[in-house]
Amino acid sequence: MSTLARFTDPASVAVVGASADPAKWGHWLALGALAGAHRRRVHLVNHRGGQVAGRECLTSVRALPEAPELVAVCVPARAVPEVVEDALALGVRAFLVITSGFTPTAEAALADRVRRAGARLLGPSCLGLYDADAELRLLWGECVPGALAIVSQSGQLGLEVAGLAAAAGLGVSRFVSVGAQCDVTATDLLHGLAGHARTRVVLLYLEGFGDGRTVLATLARLRAAGKPVVVLTAGASPVGAAAVRSHTGALSSTTDVVRAALRAAGAILARTPAEAVRAAAQLAAGIPRGDRVGVVSDSGGQGALAADLVSEAGLRPGVPVDLAGTGEADLGSYPAAIKRVLDGGDVDAVLLTGYFGRYAVDTPGLAAIEIAAAQRLVELGRGGCPLVVHSMAANDPQAPAVAVLRAGGVTVHAEIDMAVEALGLAAQWRAGAARDLSARGADSRAVGQETRSTTATVNAPWSDSAPSVITYWSARELLSAFGVPYPAAQPVASRTEVLAATARMRGPFVLKAGWIEHRTEQDAVRVGLADPVAVLAGYDELAGRLGEHGYVVEVQDQRAGVVELIVGFRRDPAFGPVVLVGIGGTLAEVYRDVTVELAPVDAELAGRMLRRLRGWPLLAGWRGRPAVDVEAAARVVAAVSRVALARGDLAEGEINPLRVGPSGAVAVDALLVPMAGRDQQAARARAADAGADVTGAAETRAAETRADVTGTSERGERMPGVTW
Amino acid sequence: MSTLARFTDPASVAVVGASADPAKWGHWLALGALAGAHRRRVHLVNHRGGQVAGRECLTSVRALPEAPELVAVCVPARAVPEVVEDALALGVRAFLVITSGFTPTAEAALADRVRRAGARLLGPSCLGLYDADAELRLLWGECVPGALAIVSQSGQLGLEVAGLAAAAGLGVSRFVSVGAQCDVTATDLLHGLAGHARTRVVLLYLEGFGDGRTVLATLARLRAAGKPVVVLTAGASPVGAAAVRSHTGALSSTTDVVRAALRAAGAILARTPAEAVRAAAQLAAGIPRGDRVGVVSDSGGQGALAADLVSEAGLRPGVPVDLAGTGEADLGSYPAAIKRVLDGGDVDAVLLTGYFGRYAVDTPGLAAIEIAAAQRLVELGRGGCPLVVHSMAANDPQAPAVAVLRAGGVTVHAEIDMAVEALGLAAQWRAGAARDLSARGADSRAVGQETRSTTATVNAPWSDSAPSVITYWSARELLSAFGVPYPAAQPVASRTEVLAATARMRGPFVLKAGWIEHRTEQDAVRVGLADPVAVLAGYDELAGRLGEHGYVVEVQDQRAGVVELIVGFRRDPAFGPVVLVGIGGTLAEVYRDVTVELAPVDAELAGRMLRRLRGWPLLAGWRGRPAVDVEAAARVVAAVSRVALARGDLAEGEINPLRVGPSGAVAVDALLVPMAGRDQQAARARAADAGADVTGAAETRAAETRADVTGTSERGERMPGVTW
Repeated sequence: MSTLARFTDPASVAVVGASADPAKWGHWLALGALAGAHRRRVHLVNHRGGQVAGRECLTSVRALPEAPELVAVCVPARAVPEVVEDALALGVRAFLVITSGFTPTAEAALADRVRRAGARLLGPSCLGLYDADAELRLLWGECVPGALAIVSQSGQLGLEVAGLAAAAGLGVSRFVSVGAQCDVTATDLLHGLAGHARTRVVLLYLEGFGDGRTVLATLARLRAAGKPVVVLTAGASPVGAAAVRSHTGALSSTTDVVRAALRAAGAILARTPAEAVRAAAQLAAGIPRGDRVGVVSDSGGQGALAADLVSEAGLRPGVPVDLAGTGEADLGSYPAAIKRVLDGGDVDAVLLTGYFGRYAVDTPGLAAIEIAAAQRLVELGRGGCPLVVHSMAANDPQAPAVAVLRAGGVTVHAEIDMAVEALGLAAQWRAGAARDLSARGADSRAVGQETRSTTATVNAPWSDSAPSVITYWSARELLSAFGVPYPAAQPVASRTEVLAATARMRGPFVLKAGWIEHRTEQDAVRVGLADPVAVLAGYDELAGRLGEHGYVVEVQDQRAGVVELIVGFRRDPAFGPVVLVGIGGTLAEVYRDVTVELAPVDAELAGRMLRRLRGWPLLAGWRGRPAVDVEAAARVVAAVSRVALARGDLAEGEINPLRVGPSGAVAVDALLVPMAGRDQQAARARAADAGADVTGAAETRAAETRADVTGTSERGERMPGVTW
Repeated sequence: MSTLARFTDPASVAVVGASADPAKWGHWLALGALAGAHRRRVHLVNHRGGQVAGRECLTSVRALPEAPELVAVCVPARAVPEVVEDALALGVRAFLVITSGFTPTAEAALADRVRRAGARLLGPSCLGLYDADAELRLLWGECVPGALAIVSQSGQLGLEVAGLAAAAGLGVSRFVSVGAQCDVTATDLLHGLAGHARTRVVLLYLEGFGDGRTVLATLARLRAAGKPVVVLTAGASPVGAAAVRSHTGALSSTTDVVRAALRAAGAILARTPAEAVRAAAQLAAGIPRGDRVGVVSDSGGQGALAADLVSEAGLRPGVPVDLAGTGEADLGSYPAAIKRVLDGGDVDAVLLTGYFGRYAVDTPGLAAIEIAAAQRLVELGRGGCPLVVHSMAANDPQAPAVAVLRAGGVTVHAEIDMAVEALGLAAQWRAGAARDLSARGADSRAVGQETRSTTATVNAPWSDSAPSVITYWSARELLSAFGVPYPAAQPVASRTEVLAATARMRGPFVLKAGWIEHRTEQDAVRVGLADPVAVLAGYDELAGRLGEHGYVVEVQDQRAGVVELIVGFRRDPAFGPVVLVGIGGTLAEVYRDVTVELAPVDAELAGRMLRRLRGWPLLAGWRGRPAVDVEAAARVVAAVSRVALARGDLAEGEINPLRVGPSGAVAVDALLVPMAGRDQQAARARAADAGADVTGAAETRAAETRADVTGTSERGERMPGVTW
């Protein structure tokens, strides 16, 4: 058997630190282990000896008659190293360490010792393990066997989830508290769930995603195995503005990125433990095929409220069916009404809200009739269109109809919005999908015939005045090489060059101080320069104030009916390159009308991102204006995604604005931020690992497609005083 | 006693339709009435006679030995009229009619009959009455006495609320199901709660607000009496676009208006019954003075999640205090940690999240210690800074510490976001206030010396081509008279007049076809006309296509650094005039960055509305630009509010855009929509009732303050072919 399998179904187990005191972990672990004694050998160890539940404790690991496949350790931290040494000497290869309170150094030493011996360690500071099939219980408290696997970085949050699941009638297939993950990680254990027959849905709590792409690959594999994953996380907060230089960085919060990452893996994100459990219960009970929800109630007020909430949740409520007095007079009218709604055929789920479940609580004589109605509801809920119930008796342990519904796999909620929210999350999961996150999944169709090396293009990209700034000209050149259309332009660094450049292009012109990152704020741009004389005047003015560095003269995009977008990327510490698109300029910052996806983003996904923007109507032809060229905008987004994947030496990149009109998209700005020196090599290595083509050869796009860009790539090197 | 008092504490009561069958309403009503038999005379009536709970039933109302102060009726609808006739003949003056199933005609006849006799009727189709002080129970089910008054238009929703409140440890002071409100209304009954000593918080469910301003006045009175009101409503949905002609109408949803109305009354709106109950329970238990929330947990995961949710709810979490193992090892560390947080003095509430409450459930031996800790927590929660608990044992009836906390007035929640949401709503209530909604509460300081009659100004405002359209010139004149600044302008209807007008003003000019409502869509505006010749050419072009009607030549506002706002009003069917302000133009429609308040809105409130916009940074000086003249914008909003109040003959009004720059605000459009003819008189009457000055004399503002508006009010009447 694989070493990891020892954590879920060991042939023998020892509990070191077993205790007779019911307030101690060692007590619960010992009792739990003994509950599986009919199918595995169980050993209890306590250095003081004594008995637990009638079983004699050995006084030392050295006294064990065998090397147990799994050793659970819950002795004080200072005693752990000796226990581990003794066990390793005996041949033990799997440790579950409950004990907490290690210093980081002690924890690292422990992990190192175990790994050097070829063994594995789960923990420390974990709250234990449970597997329903293997009848393995090394955990505080009880678990009801069921369909939900729980993998949690916080043990207590995992226990909270298990408790909430039990209350919702959802049992646990496997529970793993991963603790400090000093050796075995959550991802390792998630992996094993794809083949775990009893597990039908997975709930994962993580405080950090470590190597996020690996986590996502595992989640995608679980989706492929037909096992929905609901994720909870904490500590997500907006990225500190100091950490990023582009608007893209400031506009994409950690929460946005986590959500995008999970979307890419086909998993869903819940806000709270209870919401996660309700989503999981609904995913296990039945997943609506679409967003149409039939609403049935016995109260006009409750029906109207339910319909409002369904609509608020982004689902489509039907006109509520109100049984009014009928339900009360004849409980059979409940299943009858629901059958009529189902027979109508235009719903994907039915939501029953109101009193049902409480009749027999108020009037015990009604129990038989209410139970019969509940049984009929269970049957109806099995017809492929899930039935979800909000009952005023949902939390009442005395309500027999509620028990019948839950036993029959119908979810029953105490509050109407819990029912709606669960349906919404299940529908969201159904609408999702895992996508190919390897660079090979990128927009290969968009790669042109010419494969000019993008590394050669920007061979000296640094500004001399600020070595970490890539000049506008270099950034433009790189983005152009990847297929981003720019207006015609020329780098200039003298009055003579200004005249030469403007003679070759038609105005009006824009003049930019290319080595300055925040040009607008530093008044380092001149626009609307009608002719060479105006450009010269602008040059004299800027050069007089800012010096004769590397300027760029660019033809001004003057098209009407243009919408400005922001398109950018940044490298997330956990999930790698993230692509952002939004409504540009001031609006992006004020309204944060942006959306993010993990790279690679091809043109098709980019199109979907654009449609997701609240400002989409502006692009689609607002108030009779012509629609803009959305495909051209999407191709630019895909190009930026290719830059993000191919150029691991860049931390952030951004086009703001990209001007999109009915006749195409033109970028009129470019910002690229290099990785800090020491991070660059590592990033390149990571990009290579991820399968990205670091040379960029396969990622470039023919410069020929940019008809109005004059060839100037060789000019940069001979400019005086600045490298481009 | 007042007639309404008979509904809450009658000296005698009769239940007509009393029944021995526990599945019937008449059974519950009879039992409930008998439970108060020690303090009032109780009579039971059933036409078949028989006994209920050992009490003999009379067979007819006519057989009653007295005229009971209150008669509860639960016989079939067809039998109700006779019961009522008999009772009126006997001298009964108060009826509670549970029976449902009346036709609208029968219901109206019943109400009419009762009122003609000088009696009052609550219902029909209501679910009954309960008063804890009076020990009056005429209701299905039980109620636990407590601090919460429930007034509900849906009886069943009211019962759901009562059930949820009981589960949360919050009892009921009074319960009124108002049913069809054919005579006695929810407002009538709310009124009486101000003086109801036991009631400390009120929960109101309404499906419609009828005469909304009267409801609001009652809610404000309850707030003044120190009784927070939490409101639930259903059926709110965006106003159908067909019903309104201005963007203001399309942009202000019913939900926005309800929320604004409740804000004006100092009440709060909840989304669901459970949320409403949690808010009410927190308002009864303790109201945080501000938005700072200390977070204490015994799990890093739960603490981090709680802090995230607190922040999401718009409150300010402190750094979570994590007891980790300490809590478990010594339950006294819970109150100790909370005391330290309280002693720190920089919190307005403390949120405890995690395991506390469940120790004794797992380990009964810990009960005494956990109860002692809970008692200490109760004491700490009474120090003026509320303590709110999320406990993994909140729904466990066996958890002794949870029971101690609830009995001590500490709210305990089963899910972390329930705790956060309740705190958020309580803080929101504290931050709110009721404001003066009479027209006298309006911005009287802004009224100028000159009181030119605004009714005279627009004495013939209708367009001849569309009688329901008020021309641009007339709308401009009216808004100007109320103090809205416009650029200089002249009405013109011939080439000669164009030349005369442009000779008197400095360009560039705008030319508008004033009788056309949707000028942009119909290409009926020319902008940027530099000189008289250009205006003449524009006039020839428009007049050739649209005819020689009433045009307006206006000086074009060319200031830079301007933000465009939309400012408008509409008349809500329930709440009357509603004022809207938002970021203007396309953005208002795409991003719905608007906010509404009920009129009157003075300049100070208008300023707060502007600060509430997501686009506020655009006004406040974005990225180093100068801030715009927010006070000038606020004065225009206040002026529009005065128009809304003074001119009940207008259904909607709007300035879109109002151009606001660093040097003031200038309106460059005007739309006024008259009430449909038959509604006008009624609206004027309502405005007069509400105390508004319909002549507008006291509401006008000196036209002199608009220095650049030439006096043209007398010109309109002599224009050929059109009245202005």
